[in-house]
Amino acid sequence: MLMVELIRKKRDGEKLTDEEINYIVEGIVKGEIPDYQTAAFLMAVYFRGMDLDETVALTKAMMQTGEVIDLSDIPGPKVDKHSTGGVGDKVSLILAPLVASFGVKVPMISGRALGHTGGTLDKLESIPGFRTNLTVDEFRNAIRDVGLAIIGQTDTIVPADRKMYALRDVTATVSSIPLITSSILSKKFAEGTEALLLDVKTGSGAFMASFEDAHALAQNMVRIAHGMNKKAIALITDMDQPLGNYVGNALEVLESVETLKGKGPDDLRELVTIEAGYMLVMADIVDDHDKGKKMAEENLNNGKAYEKWVDMIVNQGGDPEAVFSEEFVKTEFEVTVNSKDSGYLVSYDTREIGIAATILGAGRLLKEDKVDHSVGIRVMKKINDPVEKDEPVFKVYANDRERLDRAIEILSKCYRVGNEPVNNTPLVLRVIRDDE
Amino acid sequence: MLMVELIRKKRDGEKLTDEEINYIVEGIVKGEIPDYQTAAFLMAVYFRGMDLDETVALTKAMMQTGEVIDLSDIPGPKVDKHSTGGVGDKVSLILAPLVASFGVKVPMISGRALGHTGGTLDKLESIPGFRTNLTVDEFRNAIRDVGLAIIGQTDTIVPADRKMYALRDVTATVSSIPLITSSILSKKFAEGTEALLLDVKTGSGAFMASFEDAHALAQNMVRIAHGMNKKAIALITDMDQPLGNYVGNALEVLESVETLKGKGPDDLRELVTIEAGYMLVMADIVDDHDKGKKMAEENLNNGKAYEKWVDMIVNQGGDPEAVFSEEFVKTEFEVTVNSKDSGYLVSYDTREIGIAATILGAGRLLKEDKVDHSVGIRVMKKINDPVEKDEPVFKVYANDRERLDRAIEILSKCYRVGNEPVNNTPLVLRVIRDDE
Repeated sequence: MLMVELIRKKRDGEKLTDEEINYIVEGIVKGEIPDYQTAAFLMAVYFRGMDLDETVALTKAMMQTGEVIDLSDIPGPKVDKHSTGGVGDKVSLILAPLVASFGVKVPMISGRALGHTGGTLDKLESIPGFRTNLTVDEFRNAIRDVGLAIIGQTDTIVPADRKMYALRDVTATVSSIPLITSSILSKKFAEGTEALLLDVKTGSGAFMASFEDAHALAQNMVRIAHGMNKKAIALITDMDQPLGNYVGNALEVLESVETLKGKGPDDLRELVTIEAGYMLVMADIVDDHDKGKKMAEENLNNGKAYEKWVDMIVNQGGDPEAVFSEEFVKTEFEVTVNSKDSGYLVSYDTREIGIAATILGAGRLLKEDKVDHSVGIRVMKKINDPVEKDEPVFKVYANDRERLDRAIEILSKCYRVGNEPVNNTPLVLRVIRDDE
Repeated sequence: MLMVELIRKKRDGEKLTDEEINYIVEGIVKGEIPDYQTAAFLMAVYFRGMDLDETVALTKAMMQTGEVIDLSDIPGPKVDKHSTGGVGDKVSLILAPLVASFGVKVPMISGRALGHTGGTLDKLESIPGFRTNLTVDEFRNAIRDVGLAIIGQTDTIVPADRKMYALRDVTATVSSIPLITSSILSKKFAEGTEALLLDVKTGSGAFMASFEDAHALAQNMVRIAHGMNKKAIALITDMDQPLGNYVGNALEVLESVETLKGKGPDDLRELVTIEAGYMLVMADIVDDHDKGKKMAEENLNNGKAYEKWVDMIVNQGGDPEAVFSEEFVKTEFEVTVNSKDSGYLVSYDTREIGIAATILGAGRLLKEDKVDHSVGIRVMKKINDPVEKDEPVFKVYANDRERLDRAIEILSKCYRVGNEPVNNTPLVLRVIRDDE
């Protein structure tokens, strides 16, 4: 096979065979296909797309370039969840122990802050001692003994994705649905899960801002997962405002712990229990997701979810009590951003809130930046909340004067106050179970 | 400027500024932009194209990466010609001395055999002693003293094109009109010509097989040349059959010399004199291309064109008498391919004839192959010539039995005989002087 001919086929919209896709993915990982040919191929995929067969073949080929963890010897259903990322999206922290509290195994390999969105690993690492770098053996033991683990990407899992993602990042080929799908699913199914709940965010704080794009991605991921004989359900969920009240690593951990203890903000609790309901259905624990949601609410209220959280934190070397100390969320500066008008909070530029948090140090402007776990933003109004002139909209937690000023400047421009409330966006806009 | 952002702009169909295009071309030549980003950019250009301003900027930026020969101190109009390449296309060999015989300066930098097409340099190098690697000083002297020179690409002229072409060749991004245009024109205008006749081939032996593609390329090249304040006329010419009667290096030189002496096949003589007419118009030697054509016919008949040929050959170290020796076109095998039917020769797969010649050794299958100057093919029928069963259609000149057999196998399948003549395609299908 000649790579230039395979690039030409894709360029001209012809369908690639499984063998051709295997050849490409293996060639990329072995370094036999030079980066410039891979880059041209990725751009051709950007323009021409890939059909169902091609994307399934790509996902499988990528998965097979590394270790595929086999959890079949561990009893119990294995269900995981993936979110496309949002602002204040701490769902995984609550959802994983909540679902595991029903005996479901949750083998979760997560990511770090990316662009304007936070990362589950960065949040968990605000807990002193918590290790996200378990070995595969430690990961397997955690799944067997505790029922869940949340860890980072290992070197051995889907090396193809690391190479391809690094190249996509610098060649403007990230936002391609088949490439996003294969990147996500190859990693998720390499971790040994049997079923996957996909939380595809849409709105001003999402990577896929438009509903149409989010829907296309959600539908594609469900189809490809089914094409790989895995259970999958996708929810398209609202990211027109931050989820919960806090953005920032330690701040979000604290909010998660409150939610795990039966409290926490309504929107966060609602979304977590809805997602838990669908995961319990895929785990065959319950046959109806509404019933599952009610069971999930119970386990938040009765302390079982929090118990599982403590088990996970301890098992991965963390101190579950540390989150309650004053030190955990202490920062040098706490400054509010106050409303310039009276009326109703009618919209946020949620992406800008994420960028403000990143600038404070909650995320990384450059890959080599160190995350500051304690900084962040409290979002004090939900959309349609009444707001008075000079009433705080945000509280900013910062450790650096200059960063604080930049964040305040951004935040003072990223909310709008109107005279009338607006139509409420539902938390879940669409559920995609099959080829809908 | 960030290259990834410039790739994204082109990917999304946004217009690049002159500064952005300069940044890209300089970055490519200086090695500051990695090949994978260049490859992704080229593929985005393949899909999105470039408008007039962008292509002019690209052509100028490429030209400026190397030496731009200034011939303004040499008196006389400077006019050159470029062909997109065909089978049996020896026009340059005749046209350059013919036009120079009127006092026009012809500074011609030419190419080698590419794919199924022959190359002017390879043809000229069949003449013992002939040097195509003149220095820029020797080239300038030749233009001043002899009136013309035909040489190969030097290392100093448009280094951007060498880098970009090498990358296009392996990333399936060759066949992009703005990339073809900028590659051709940057080199042609770096050689110091003021005007350019473009011979864009169409038909079964052309790179742009369809008339529409050839027309789009021809129109684009004329527009971009005008955008660079250069005179340019494009002819779209027929390549549905080989030009003249011979394909192969020494064979084509001999046919050219015959044409320069006032003989030669009708189609070749016709096309050469038409092209000369347009070049004489651009040189302000005559105001009407038909008059120019008649003048050109005279200079073929009166020996002036041949005289200029001899001057050029001698000036570049070649022996003009050598072409008349028996050795010049001698090969080990001469075999005819005979018609299987009686009727009229109605069509050729001209590309396959070019491939057969390449296999014989007239071109290169691999870049490092050595050309065999004496081998080739005589095409014994023009389209619509009557043909008898068992009458020769081709004569094959070969030096290798195995290659001969492969060529015969191809040639025996690349002509069609019908019961009736077909409509004749004119030699020149369209003349493009401006934005027609």
